[in-house]
Amino acid sequence: MNSNPIGVFDSGIGGLTAVKRLIQLLPNENIVYLGDTGRVPYGSRSRDTILKYARQNADFLLRLGIKAMIIACNTVSSTAFDDISRGASIPIFEVINPPSALAVRATNNGKIGVIGTKATVRSGAYRRAIESLDPSLEVQCAACPLFVPLAENGRTSPDDVAVMAITRDYLAPIVQFGADTVILGCTHYPLLRAAVARALPPGVTLIDSGAVTAEYAAGQLGALGLLSSSVDTGVRRYFVTDAAEDFESLAGAFLGADISGLAEQTSLE
Amino acid sequence: MNSNPIGVFDSGIGGLTAVKRLIQLLPNENIVYLGDTGRVPYGSRSRDTILKYARQNADFLLRLGIKAMIIACNTVSSTAFDDISRGASIPIFEVINPPSALAVRATNNGKIGVIGTKATVRSGAYRRAIESLDPSLEVQCAACPLFVPLAENGRTSPDDVAVMAITRDYLAPIVQFGADTVILGCTHYPLLRAAVARALPPGVTLIDSGAVTAEYAAGQLGALGLLSSSVDTGVRRYFVTDAAEDFESLAGAFLGADISGLAEQTSLE
Repeated sequence: MNSNPIGVFDSGIGGLTAVKRLIQLLPNENIVYLGDTGRVPYGSRSRDTILKYARQNADFLLRLGIKAMIIACNTVSSTAFDDISRGASIPIFEVINPPSALAVRATNNGKIGVIGTKATVRSGAYRRAIESLDPSLEVQCAACPLFVPLAENGRTSPDDVAVMAITRDYLAPIVQFGADTVILGCTHYPLLRAAVARALPPGVTLIDSGAVTAEYAAGQLGALGLLSSSVDTGVRRYFVTDAAEDFESLAGAFLGADISGLAEQTSLE
Repeated sequence: MNSNPIGVFDSGIGGLTAVKRLIQLLPNENIVYLGDTGRVPYGSRSRDTILKYARQNADFLLRLGIKAMIIACNTVSSTAFDDISRGASIPIFEVINPPSALAVRATNNGKIGVIGTKATVRSGAYRRAIESLDPSLEVQCAACPLFVPLAENGRTSPDDVAVMAITRDYLAPIVQFGADTVILGCTHYPLLRAAVARALPPGVTLIDSGAVTAEYAAGQLGALGLLSSSVDTGVRRYFVTDAAEDFESLAGAFLGADISGLAEQTSLE
């Protein structure tokens, strides 16, 4: 069992920010990644459509015999976690609670900001997670619907006038609110980290939901006795629902590693 | 036969720019529209994925007994027209050739600009269409991958700093080229018409591919004897692959009419 792969899925390439951290922490684990690149983005779609796509992603990974699953997509985690985890026989991790717990520990002024997709903000999942840990904390959320298209089109630089104008618009309620800690509540957003930091006052703590979840999952898998005993570098497989070549070239930027020839196209429908 | 509906499809809501013109010209025609809102946008996806989605859209409309089809999506028209029209027993219209023919007549300096999605530009379809009509004309294309996300998120104003920065970036090669006629080669782009006009020198002619195609199709249907003889206002049905309510609220802006309660969600998979 414990040499079975860890399954990770996202609507597209964003979940690779979690995979990157997972590989750093657990280099001997086998990992299978699924990115639904043929239907990305999820964040502006309706709840029912997100539920349907999430179920298809999870079923695909389960058929591959994974020993644990990381839902490396905030939109899916906030909308479909209960649906996917109900009756599951393996541990399933989501990207809402681990970064929320870290934000609760990190804040000094009791004001936490959360940025995410429309669906993530609409779900209220971050607010519930933070308030359940400490009801005295204040939470301000802001939807950033153009961040995923910007990231996927390679426009992420804080020196890009359009990027900064959009980022300042989106972050304005967070700045006005006075958050000292902000959760990047979408696994694509670390690519826009420099722009987000520039739009916020100096000294605000930024929390990467994908990386923090990878850290949490690694600890839990150890505690559950589910880690591989292999001393070899793990085998990583990448599945996508659009062309594998397009994914491979973008994935390199996320992972900081060349994965040419490692991705395969599949169909979920 | 001639009271059967005209079928129109697009990746999302953009094709409604063609429907709007069709309703103005042929108010008594029954129209069935399909927007694949659960998988929009198409323009950044691979050729094979676009072919697959296009086939599913076309088959859905054909099963409804349409008398003619308008592919109101430049990405699909430029990538999948041959595949869809092969062996078809009804007229099928695409949004590449009608605006190309108009641009060829409109240009005075022989320089035509085309803006579209990555897939439309990659296909070379506009260049081939224009050069086949007049090989002496020069064509400059420019991909505008963020225009669809901007339009779908309601950011279209030329007074929006981000919109104008992105628009000026994308239009720069067209401005440098010196086009006197520019085809809006995506049915979403009329929403950004004011921004595009501001990024171009005064006096440049802008051609709306969806509206021009509706005009062309209306004329052809008349010539083919396929128009309805009904004197009643046509029945219009709208199908989408994501939530109908979300579509209805956005569609009003495209159509300039309230279609509350007229849209239905369907599945193509």
